[in-house]
Amino acid sequence: VIEMRIAALHYERMTALDLVGPCEILAGLPGAELISVAAEPGPKRCDQGLVLVAEHALADVPRPDVVLVPGSSDPSDPIGDERVRAWLRAASAHARMTASVCTGSLVLGAAGLLQGRRATSHWAALELLRGFGAEPVAERVVFDDPIVTAAGVASGIDMALHLAARLAGDHAAQVAQLIAEYDPAPPFDCGSPGKASPEVLSAARELLGVPSPAAHTP
Amino acid sequence: VIEMRIAALHYERMTALDLVGPCEILAGLPGAELISVAAEPGPKRCDQGLVLVAEHALADVPRPDVVLVPGSSDPSDPIGDERVRAWLRAASAHARMTASVCTGSLVLGAAGLLQGRRATSHWAALELLRGFGAEPVAERVVFDDPIVTAAGVASGIDMALHLAARLAGDHAAQVAQLIAEYDPAPPFDCGSPGKASPEVLSAARELLGVPSPAAHTP
Repeated sequence: VIEMRIAALHYERMTALDLVGPCEILAGLPGAELISVAAEPGPKRCDQGLVLVAEHALADVPRPDVVLVPGSSDPSDPIGDERVRAWLRAASAHARMTASVCTGSLVLGAAGLLQGRRATSHWAALELLRGFGAEPVAERVVFDDPIVTAAGVASGIDMALHLAARLAGDHAAQVAQLIAEYDPAPPFDCGSPGKASPEVLSAARELLGVPSPAAHTP
Repeated sequence: VIEMRIAALHYERMTALDLVGPCEILAGLPGAELISVAAEPGPKRCDQGLVLVAEHALADVPRPDVVLVPGSSDPSDPIGDERVRAWLRAASAHARMTASVCTGSLVLGAAGLLQGRRATSHWAALELLRGFGAEPVAERVVFDDPIVTAAGVASGIDMALHLAARLAGDHAAQVAQLIAEYDPAPPFDCGSPGKASPEVLSAARELLGVPSPAAHTP
């Protein structure tokens, strides 16, 4: 079993599920070691109110094998923090894979890691990737090795299973999926903009503070 | 908008995704307020290594509207803690709904809340529910009002959407699903025992320390 150190970036106002979903899948892989890191170690309040603790400073984990970057409804802290951006550039240069979930891809973009790359993000933030020189791709999981980006929040679990298969093989990924009992059965089929009703999409845009495209129609 | 206080029980070795998945869905509902509670407030190390912080003591939140109990690969701490069991009995007596994920149902059972009720749990723990007077049901989400139990880990997200629809209506639940971009697309179809290959099921049982049924066959 090859050792696999997974650095999970923490920051204020991150979306807890972006981080916890993939960690639940990846941390049980053979040889995996999960390491929580932040520019300032300590407790971080997530955007829905839960508190997660980063136990290590970025400098403690210069060469992880896997880098995991969660998103946030407001990722301005890591986007504006040169310590985070510099660590991401250096760590990802040596990592087997660098992964983001949701608007975590904007953080990778701000670090300069998505220039000329195909990438995805939360549906409401997808077009913002262009500002970082990336080509937005409206897919749930986008590999542009050695970077993988996932769409919004819950897509991180799907991304992590694809990533687990790459890192540890299909068998290990399938065992992780069975242990997590990830046999999804949502009560509604409205989890992406193309499937939701206009009323649901409009309400989601309003809650997210995203202008409706209709507002720009003359 | 009616106020809805959601008490999320924290404890040592809990499974982070059991708690974080449902919280991500429920915390954004109209009027929702997420409150982290534990017998001893403070940081709790989850079974995959992440650290979540409980900010309130159980006595601070005697009458939540919703009670959420995560599972664990080893839920012996809350099962053996009369402070937790007594709080669960008292809180659930007044709550609109009491919800568990994964082996969180064993914690509800230990508190005496599942006597004569239909309930579910992680597939590897399902039969243990009989020891608490419950009828094990091999379904992903089981309502026996005012208690709802979910199967393993990731099923908590499905449960939370059903619960959100009960608490706040289909529209609000659908908006939550779209914001979380929960449009699942796992790379494998092996997330429950009946769908996994014998090799994957056997490996999962071994990792979980669950004896294989085959071992009992003469």
